[in-house]
Amino acid sequence: MGAKKVANLLRPVAKRVLRIWFDEKYISGRHFDIGFSGFIWALRSIWQRNILRLAPPMPWPVALNCHISNSSNIHFHPDNLDNFQSPGAYFQCINAKIFIGRGVYIGPNVGIITANHDFNDLDLHLEGKDVVIKDNCWIGMNSVVLPGVVLEKRTIVGAGSVVTKNFSDGDVVICGVPARVIKSIGGVSD
Amino acid sequence: MGAKKVANLLRPVAKRVLRIWFDEKYISGRHFDIGFSGFIWALRSIWQRNILRLAPPMPWPVALNCHISNSSNIHFHPDNLDNFQSPGAYFQCINAKIFIGRGVYIGPNVGIITANHDFNDLDLHLEGKDVVIKDNCWIGMNSVVLPGVVLEKRTIVGAGSVVTKNFSDGDVVICGVPARVIKSIGGVSD
Amino acid sequence: MGAKKVANLLRPVAKRVLRIWFDEKYISGRHFDIGFSGFIWALRSIWQRNILRLAPPMPWPVALNCHISNSSNIHFHPDNLDNFQSPGAYFQCINAKIFIGRGVYIGPNVGIITANHDFNDLDLHLEGKDVVIKDNCWIGMNSVVLPGVVLEKRTIVGAGSVVTKNFSDGDVVICGVPARVIKSIGGVSD
Repeated sequence: MGAKKVANLLRPVAKRVLRIWFDEKYISGRHFDIGFSGFIWALRSIWQRNILRLAPPMPWPVALNCHISNSSNIHFHPDNLDNFQSPGAYFQCINAKIFIGRGVYIGPNVGIITANHDFNDLDLHLEGKDVVIKDNCWIGMNSVVLPGVVLEKRTIVGAGSVVTKNFSDGDVVICGVPARVIKSIGGVSD
Repeated sequence: MGAKKVANLLRPVAKRVLRIWFDEKYISGRHFDIGFSGFIWALRSIWQRNILRLAPPMPWPVALNCHISNSSNIHFHPDNLDNFQSPGAYFQCINAKIFIGRGVYIGPNVGIITANHDFNDLDLHLEGKDVVIKDNCWIGMNSVVLPGVVLEKRTIVGAGSVVTKNFSDGDVVICGVPARVIKSIGGVSD
Repeated sequence: MGAKKVANLLRPVAKRVLRIWFDEKYISGRHFDIGFSGFIWALRSIWQRNILRLAPPMPWPVALNCHISNSSNIHFHPDNLDNFQSPGAYFQCINAKIFIGRGVYIGPNVGIITANHDFNDLDLHLEGKDVVIKDNCWIGMNSVVLPGVVLEKRTIVGAGSVVTKNFSDGDVVICGVPARVIKSIGGVSD
């Protein structure tokens, strides 16, 4: 019996063991069924967050310097667990939700923000507004997505952009500070 | 006697113990007197910096991936200790000072830079120039503030901006690369 | 015999010991021959990466939150080891190379990217394109350099810029999203 076969037989057992630290629903999908990236992320997250306590434990595997202010406000499919291994990414969702579609890619140092500070009293946050990032969007490195933004399917956000408003057409590349449409990529979408 | 009462009785003792690792003057203010965020930041900082030595120990609680090049060159009120819990923030103040006013908020991955490299010999830094961020400013995520900049009270710097010059009016929102005034918010200031 | 003399006598021994963890060719140059910064980075890297396993071990000293996707694809002189101590920097070089010239400075949170995702199937990367950063360039904080870019000698990239194309003149300051030439600094180059 080959090493690969043994590994595959152990998958269900390993998944069951990971439920000690993580919510069962996230320990599934391609990262746990094809290759072993999910298991590596899980072990790393247990070591760094649950054992060494370098950052708060999370209900799914999260890289050390990926920050999530309220894990109960993020909605995503476990196939897209890779977005939480993105270094420097910051999911600010204290009082509003972040929806991340299937096949979304979020780059390093990206911020997804649901609530601004109140200009009249910075100690307070304004009411949060959900951010919705639909299927097959890609948010390039060092970009920031601001409260209330809805990105339609396959909106590609260039690196270093600041997304201040909705882009509801999909199949576009947007770029800049603030982000504007620079190219349509219609016709090749799924 | 309720748990809250006990906790409040322990506050002065806990503060005194923290002086083993931190400068007394920083272990005060709202984060230590209301709620317990200051104590949590302190324990985290002791664990990560003083015990595990993952980053240099600092005279006040600082998050693991918040970088301060010279802590003696930063001036701030302990009520604003939260700015040093900001992930990815970078305070470059080798030879010049950074002044942070009351009620200032500094977002994740923000850089406050006091000295550029010398174009003619990048191994050298130009002479540092103090950066002054006055009361109630808010520097949005992924922004950079360059050497010598003075931001008057309640200057709101939009995410992803690069602040290259002084904004001396206050009560404004500035944005962009380089940052320009996009909106006045006068009339609601303190 | 002074402490400095003893330290200098120990240099060759210490370098030899570091070869247990690092590739010999990187444990040389100014950071190991003048002052002790190289040794400090090495000890930090061994502790964080090889012992605590907080990030993957690397063939040269790399800061905890500096990310290198494939160390065999980065080419640089050990005198420029300081670029890998830059917090939040991200070297994405899975299938193409990054060439870093002598005297280059790379700021915090900078991304050097050699391959984009394929717009038609984000799960895939497009073929990588080498990034070449020639001698005495300086990439300012929070900037991103995109696939295939060649920066000629002494190209200064302002903070928060996104470099989307080649700049083949050298001796220029470039800035913005996307980056454009804003100033020539010709005549003072080496």
